[in-house]
Amino acid sequence: MIRVRAGQVAALTGSELRGPDVDLSNLAGLREAQPGDLAVLHNPRYAKFLGETRASAVIVRPEHVADSPAGRTLIVTDNPYLCWAKVIALYAETIRVKPVPGVHPTAVVDPTATVDPTCTVGAHAVIDAGAAIGPHTVVCPLVYVGRNSTIGRDGLVYSNVAIRENCTIGDRVIIHCGSVIGGDGFGYAQDGARQFKIPQVGTVVLEDDVEVGCACTIDRGVFGPTTIRRGTKLDNQVQVAHNVTVGEDTLLIAQSAIAGSTTVGDRVVMSGQVGVHGHIRIGNDVKIGAQAGITKSVPDGMNVSGYPAMDHIKARRREAAAMMLPEYINKINRMERRIAELEAKLGIKHDA
Amino acid sequence: MIRVRAGQVAALTGSELRGPDVDLSNLAGLREAQPGDLAVLHNPRYAKFLGETRASAVIVRPEHVADSPAGRTLIVTDNPYLCWAKVIALYAETIRVKPVPGVHPTAVVDPTATVDPTCTVGAHAVIDAGAAIGPHTVVCPLVYVGRNSTIGRDGLVYSNVAIRENCTIGDRVIIHCGSVIGGDGFGYAQDGARQFKIPQVGTVVLEDDVEVGCACTIDRGVFGPTTIRRGTKLDNQVQVAHNVTVGEDTLLIAQSAIAGSTTVGDRVVMSGQVGVHGHIRIGNDVKIGAQAGITKSVPDGMNVSGYPAMDHIKARRREAAAMMLPEYINKINRMERRIAELEAKLGIKHDA
Amino acid sequence: MIRVRAGQVAALTGSELRGPDVDLSNLAGLREAQPGDLAVLHNPRYAKFLGETRASAVIVRPEHVADSPAGRTLIVTDNPYLCWAKVIALYAETIRVKPVPGVHPTAVVDPTATVDPTCTVGAHAVIDAGAAIGPHTVVCPLVYVGRNSTIGRDGLVYSNVAIRENCTIGDRVIIHCGSVIGGDGFGYAQDGARQFKIPQVGTVVLEDDVEVGCACTIDRGVFGPTTIRRGTKLDNQVQVAHNVTVGEDTLLIAQSAIAGSTTVGDRVVMSGQVGVHGHIRIGNDVKIGAQAGITKSVPDGMNVSGYPAMDHIKARRREAAAMMLPEYINKINRMERRIAELEAKLGIKHDA
Repeated sequence: MIRVRAGQVAALTGSELRGPDVDLSNLAGLREAQPGDLAVLHNPRYAKFLGETRASAVIVRPEHVADSPAGRTLIVTDNPYLCWAKVIALYAETIRVKPVPGVHPTAVVDPTATVDPTCTVGAHAVIDAGAAIGPHTVVCPLVYVGRNSTIGRDGLVYSNVAIRENCTIGDRVIIHCGSVIGGDGFGYAQDGARQFKIPQVGTVVLEDDVEVGCACTIDRGVFGPTTIRRGTKLDNQVQVAHNVTVGEDTLLIAQSAIAGSTTVGDRVVMSGQVGVHGHIRIGNDVKIGAQAGITKSVPDGMNVSGYPAMDHIKARRREAAAMMLPEYINKINRMERRIAELEAKLGIKHDA
Repeated sequence: MIRVRAGQVAALTGSELRGPDVDLSNLAGLREAQPGDLAVLHNPRYAKFLGETRASAVIVRPEHVADSPAGRTLIVTDNPYLCWAKVIALYAETIRVKPVPGVHPTAVVDPTATVDPTCTVGAHAVIDAGAAIGPHTVVCPLVYVGRNSTIGRDGLVYSNVAIRENCTIGDRVIIHCGSVIGGDGFGYAQDGARQFKIPQVGTVVLEDDVEVGCACTIDRGVFGPTTIRRGTKLDNQVQVAHNVTVGEDTLLIAQSAIAGSTTVGDRVVMSGQVGVHGHIRIGNDVKIGAQAGITKSVPDGMNVSGYPAMDHIKARRREAAAMMLPEYINKINRMERRIAELEAKLGIKHDA
Repeated sequence: MIRVRAGQVAALTGSELRGPDVDLSNLAGLREAQPGDLAVLHNPRYAKFLGETRASAVIVRPEHVADSPAGRTLIVTDNPYLCWAKVIALYAETIRVKPVPGVHPTAVVDPTATVDPTCTVGAHAVIDAGAAIGPHTVVCPLVYVGRNSTIGRDGLVYSNVAIRENCTIGDRVIIHCGSVIGGDGFGYAQDGARQFKIPQVGTVVLEDDVEVGCACTIDRGVFGPTTIRRGTKLDNQVQVAHNVTVGEDTLLIAQSAIAGSTTVGDRVVMSGQVGVHGHIRIGNDVKIGAQAGITKSVPDGMNVSGYPAMDHIKARRREAAAMMLPEYINKINRMERRIAELEAKLGIKHDA
């Protein structure tokens, strides 16, 4: 499938090539690899398979060179996973269908919209009044871009995406199928028993290099923007409420949800199905476990998990204790009887 | 941004104007406000900032009038949040782009469908046979309205929404981008090891003034309707299964899911990521905490949270106890040794 | 509404008709049924209503025949629910609008795509280069089918679905509105503080008789396929990450999410809002409770629930114990004072 030489792979990431420069035709796991395959030793736990793998070349960290039989071709790097990713990127480039610039005749582009001549706009896409699409950006079929929304250069908006009015989307932003950018935030004022809708007159800002997964929803601010900063990536079905700010290079895994006006820092990793309350602050470099419920602000650098979320080590201890709880309930009841027996022996009386 | 006089704001909600009638040009928080800004004191905790705010006018409750320096313009009302919401609504009206009635030439409207001449139907929208769209309703681009579905007057269906056949949607209903109304309920009968699909021949009824967020899914009944009653609001990514009934003026926050045939009362507030089992009843005025799992019916007026959900106060106590559990496990073990020591001293023998 | 004779119902599933062969005009619950209605006794708990129901005929298991008054028409079967489902299917067939073969003039079908002449392709659908749609398959309005993706025969793709390139979809597959098949998996390699996107060059395979609910997201593999095997059904808003394999005849209920490279067995039932970690294996015939968090592999046949998920019976015990915990904390503190009293009496000294 892939066709690459070991030396090319090494050159991709400035890695060191050890052993013969061989032809490689496929990627495979260490245990599944056949001759001609390239494998990667990403997780040190699998170092034990280095001896027996049939792969023709392996990407390894310097400390695992000694674990490999002499003569095996190695690509030695401090970041094997990145090296492996770049091999896939190299392969992906060879199979990529280059988009042909131009607006499909069935697309509806308002005369007041600006679409760069290098853009590709797919069938049945709709670009509304005043919108602007930057150079080399691809807008796939059946996408809606609302009034006065702007998309930067080298962007990729997959099919069936809806972008409401007045949103600002940076360069190299990718938005996957079915996502909605700029829906109304959820805001009502109680008016007797009924709800009075608070118009959401704010916007959404997606900075450069943001990627938004499939079927995500990022609401516009009630007043002012909802902001996703440079380089942050959202997995599928992530919900970002109005006036949230998410920092740079943060990862929000599938089905996580952030309530209104919360601030999330840089380089945060939020595992799947996490819920974050509104009006709080998640610091930089925070790691959040899957399904955690974040009810209050989290300082920089903490690892948290569980519900309500707390320091991950403590949460694990809480979980372990909860597992033992049924047997401890029994033990407590036995201890109580033993105390009563002791008390009886010593003539002490107790009500309970 | 906004341009309004304090007297106008007071008139919006029949509030009392105290102090000079000033020009206001922006909304801001009490602490961030600059001269010319209008602020609101919604949460009494922030009353302490009334003294120092630079806002030219503040919306306050009667009991906070005394906290404000003399001469400051105040708009006095029992519901400051509603007053503030109405100021935003006033502003929103000034920037609103009025929809132009008419059917876009690329929209596909079946000859047997009825579209009121005051409607706006956007580019590439598809209105199927027998469907009916009421006066002044706006159907945005790329929306699908299925056979014989009806939408009342003054509605707003945002882009990329899909409404399946035979659904009934009331007046002033808003449906946000990417939502699906009337998908098949999830119903199968076990036929040996395989699943036999139970056709879902029911409908969906959205009553007047319902609002459905982005990427929600409201399934049609297997037989009979799934119903959302008047004034109820759904946030994004909410899932409503077949034959559910949700009462009036209820709020369902993001990513909540209600399983089949459950009934939810009036004025319920369901926080985010809540899960509700099927075939149960949530009473009126129930409040449900975020991420709660509702496994059985909940009487009117209860506040519940946690998994499995229980009375909120008890759930908080359970959480607090769980936090202390690891240290209590240690304490129990120490106590057990002390009991053994006492028993040894008194010559009592125990197996465990 | 339905119009069927009791004898016909019995014939549908090879059931036995007892009593007169009557005309039936509606389906109703045992307690709500009126004369002329057909009811079903599915749950044995409701056998007590057999005596008083006004239904003209009831579908029952053999063991409940004796609970019904003499003269009442019974349809006797080992699988009443399946029989009831087939009655609905019979009715559904009578109201079904047969799709008219043909490609709507507004649909955009690439000249290199293959659409069988028996297919129905709706308004504004887009079928990209090299795609192939099998006989009698219906592609509804506003659907996108990507390059070289194939859909088998007798399929049904509802409106606003997006299928990306190179996906393989079997026969009789149903995909509901708003779902996304083949979005990029969520994969990045850390490159300093930034994320390097790993191109997702794999595919999605949906085998025969798979059904995908509304607004689901099934990501393509990073390399190799994400696979959903024959007969498996997904409810709404289900998330399946890259390189997951889901077995046959499995049910994934609403808002469940499966992380990357996990394998799920055959005949698994995953209740709603379940989260499953990546790189693990869920065995065959596993049942998973709602909102469970699966953090490690689960052997065949287990029932699990809770967070972290464990054997269901143990999880219930853990929950019950957690409910009693606040009172046990008090009890422990009282016991500690009693021990101290005993120690004082015996002249034993302790620090804590």
